[in-house]
Amino acid sequence: MGVAASGRPVTPDVAERVQALARSIWPDGRVRISYHPQCFQEQGHFAGSDEARADALVELANDPAVDALWIARGGWGAARIVDMVLPRLKRAAHGKSYMGYSDAGTLLAALYARGIGRQFHGPMPVDIVREGGEAAVARALRWLVDQDEESLEASVRATDKPVAAFNLTILSHLMGTPWLPDLSGHVLMLEEVGEYVYRIDRALAQVTSSPAVRVAAGIRLGRCSDIPPNDPDFGRDEETVAREWCMRSGIQWLGRADIGHDVANKVVPFGRP
Amino acid sequence: MGVAASGRPVTPDVAERVQALARSIWPDGRVRISYHPQCFQEQGHFAGSDEARADALVELANDPAVDALWIARGGWGAARIVDMVLPRLKRAAHGKSYMGYSDAGTLLAALYARGIGRQFHGPMPVDIVREGGEAAVARALRWLVDQDEESLEASVRATDKPVAAFNLTILSHLMGTPWLPDLSGHVLMLEEVGEYVYRIDRALAQVTSSPAVRVAAGIRLGRCSDIPPNDPDFGRDEETVAREWCMRSGIQWLGRADIGHDVANKVVPFGRP
Repeated sequence: MGVAASGRPVTPDVAERVQALARSIWPDGRVRISYHPQCFQEQGHFAGSDEARADALVELANDPAVDALWIARGGWGAARIVDMVLPRLKRAAHGKSYMGYSDAGTLLAALYARGIGRQFHGPMPVDIVREGGEAAVARALRWLVDQDEESLEASVRATDKPVAAFNLTILSHLMGTPWLPDLSGHVLMLEEVGEYVYRIDRALAQVTSSPAVRVAAGIRLGRCSDIPPNDPDFGRDEETVAREWCMRSGIQWLGRADIGHDVANKVVPFGRP
Repeated sequence: MGVAASGRPVTPDVAERVQALARSIWPDGRVRISYHPQCFQEQGHFAGSDEARADALVELANDPAVDALWIARGGWGAARIVDMVLPRLKRAAHGKSYMGYSDAGTLLAALYARGIGRQFHGPMPVDIVREGGEAAVARALRWLVDQDEESLEASVRATDKPVAAFNLTILSHLMGTPWLPDLSGHVLMLEEVGEYVYRIDRALAQVTSSPAVRVAAGIRLGRCSDIPPNDPDFGRDEETVAREWCMRSGIQWLGRADIGHDVANKVVPFGRP
């Protein structure tokens, strides 16, 4: 397994704790996690320059010895490098799994749109710093290593429809770009963190009014955490606005999804389960 | 002139101060500003329900006695009602001027996309509460009443290209929607307020990677004010990232624009000057 950071960096401590966790689950040592040194670089906000981040991703994606490319952390940065990564991906990149969420969703979207590898919306190494974060990271590892179905978001196991999962703000910023995949017939799962309800409302207004999203089979709303208080009170919560936009747009409301910026975040495979 | 609020409300005090300003400029009383009572309604975040805001806009837009429809304030709300307004606009709506900025940009965009009236990105009644705000409001009034060219953004007077101006976040949320106008050959002016540089960067990544924006003649960056400090320091300012995205996308960088969330905000007519 190879780890690169498309957005913000992680510390070596994160790498060591994830290694230790993997060794405790698979004491036979068959799970090898290789952190590209780029993960620990810092350049202002980012884990190294655009070139460094793109090069690390391309190197690991094109390495036939790497089965899964795991994004270390989100934060903002994937959309700065996606056009530097895609044209350089070779045959080995197609046989791979890719996992991440939040900002990394841009990369997953672009890979899915081009049919490169299998994409999974799920926990990242950085999640180990959360309280109880080992559970999230173990869930991601158990999926990538053993395809343990316990790691999957429950509704994914119950549908035969293709699925896609995004951070809502990231999907909002994919609209109109060449990185947005064809969402026809998809169950679309959306989660959010740290945004005012008025911004959740605004992003939902955008995505549900878009023809590219109206072709989806329906929307499931993941957890929206750390919502700052609105002044004045917004008068609606995130589920109210999501249901409202589904009704107005004719997109089916399918209920909640068990994903979010937290340790309970489950794995969602892009495409048909 | 009729005033309606597509997003947040204003207080009667704003209306009175703008009336007094208009009377001081045109003592003959020929400028009559009619505030729809909806401007002062409050429903949570909004100036009344979606229906109330849409109804007020439609009523004023369809009133042949109203020459200009002036949006009272931004804040968030126009995209919630644009699809309730457009289908109800009648002949009188086509002969009208529409002015506003920030959140009201969604309405201007949709009207411009459908060729309904003339749209102007410029100060709103609520700007009178800013320090020195009378200058901004007088500039808007002088344009709407007398087509005073001193009110116009300087570069608009020097170009024969069509122009469009937006708040960057609003344009980002127009991407992929049916409300985005054809920007082919346009000088695109973008301003921002209250967003981290990483978010400005993220929104610019989106809009400049979109084929719908790459057809523009070029980008001019307005003022980006009240930028919260990034932690860690982002290492680039708003002009650096705008220039960078122009270079990467092949969109021409045309320099700065004299627009922004401030009292110096000039008037930008949509389309050909």
